[in-house]
Amino acid sequence: MKRILGIDPGLLHTGWAIIDVQGSERKYIASGVILPPTKIALAERLAFIFNGVSELCETFQPNECSIEVIFVNKNGKTTLLLGHARAAAITAVAVKNIPVFEYEPNKVKKALTSIGHADKDQIYKMLSILLPTAHPKTADESDAIAIALTHANTSRFT
Amino acid sequence: MKRILGIDPGLLHTGWAIIDVQGSERKYIASGVILPPTKIALAERLAFIFNGVSELCETFQPNECSIEVIFVNKNGKTTLLLGHARAAAITAVAVKNIPVFEYEPNKVKKALTSIGHADKDQIYKMLSILLPTAHPKTADESDAIAIALTHANTSRFT
Repeated sequence: MKRILGIDPGLLHTGWAIIDVQGSERKYIASGVILPPTKIALAERLAFIFNGVSELCETFQPNECSIEVIFVNKNGKTTLLLGHARAAAITAVAVKNIPVFEYEPNKVKKALTSIGHADKDQIYKMLSILLPTAHPKTADESDAIAIALTHANTSRFT
Repeated sequence: MKRILGIDPGLLHTGWAIIDVQGSERKYIASGVILPPTKIALAERLAFIFNGVSELCETFQPNECSIEVIFVNKNGKTTLLLGHARAAAITAVAVKNIPVFEYEPNKVKKALTSIGHADKDQIYKMLSILLPTAHPKTADESDAIAIALTHANTSRFT
């Protein structure tokens, strides 16, 4: 059995999900969102995300972590800030020597729906089939579950 | 007296410098470069930078930290990776509740040379005048000293 932490990072809200995987079985354990206070500076925000992910690792003791690759798009400034949030989350996992696996967005879509260009609705429907006990309340949580499942479905867990 | 940690972050080498400031006096304490092993993955690299900066904070107990703002330029991918290194360094400082101050590159140049578009050579010459006991061995160290001095010269330390 392996426990996977999926993370959907963001400076405003960082979605997270924990799933257990054994062979072809996947079990939803927990999910939620790390919400830094709204009016704090970048550095404090990064510390908040780091501490949040750090606590998750201590509470749930995941064996591996899964996170999406990000690319610079039209709004470079926003992507750069997202990159900071992503790095804070990755660092929190990596300092605990938990391996971090990175997946490109279309790999996530393909691993869950077999379609590289699936839309959000198709992915969320697939999640409810694959993990019927998960009831994510936000898109951030759903995305974190999706990235955790992607790692489960593309790795060999025996 | 205040002790400032200046950081010039990078995934390959992260320059750092410690200076003490009291009124108009500036004293060079130490500087160096954090060098992660060359063949490690992004997550391990971020953890290495985080642990390196964390150790510096424990050893030198700086009161404040100074770091440059970065912007997305033509090579968005490189800037995004640099942003990750920058975030790992900032996070290491911020989780210790040390305030982080960010300066735009032209503010660094102006704070040290009174010229917003000063070149690297002009800045390095100015550093040797302002901190004659500092003998940085690399550009990363010099840049870290420059950003620490910028904070000293733009804040009121009494």
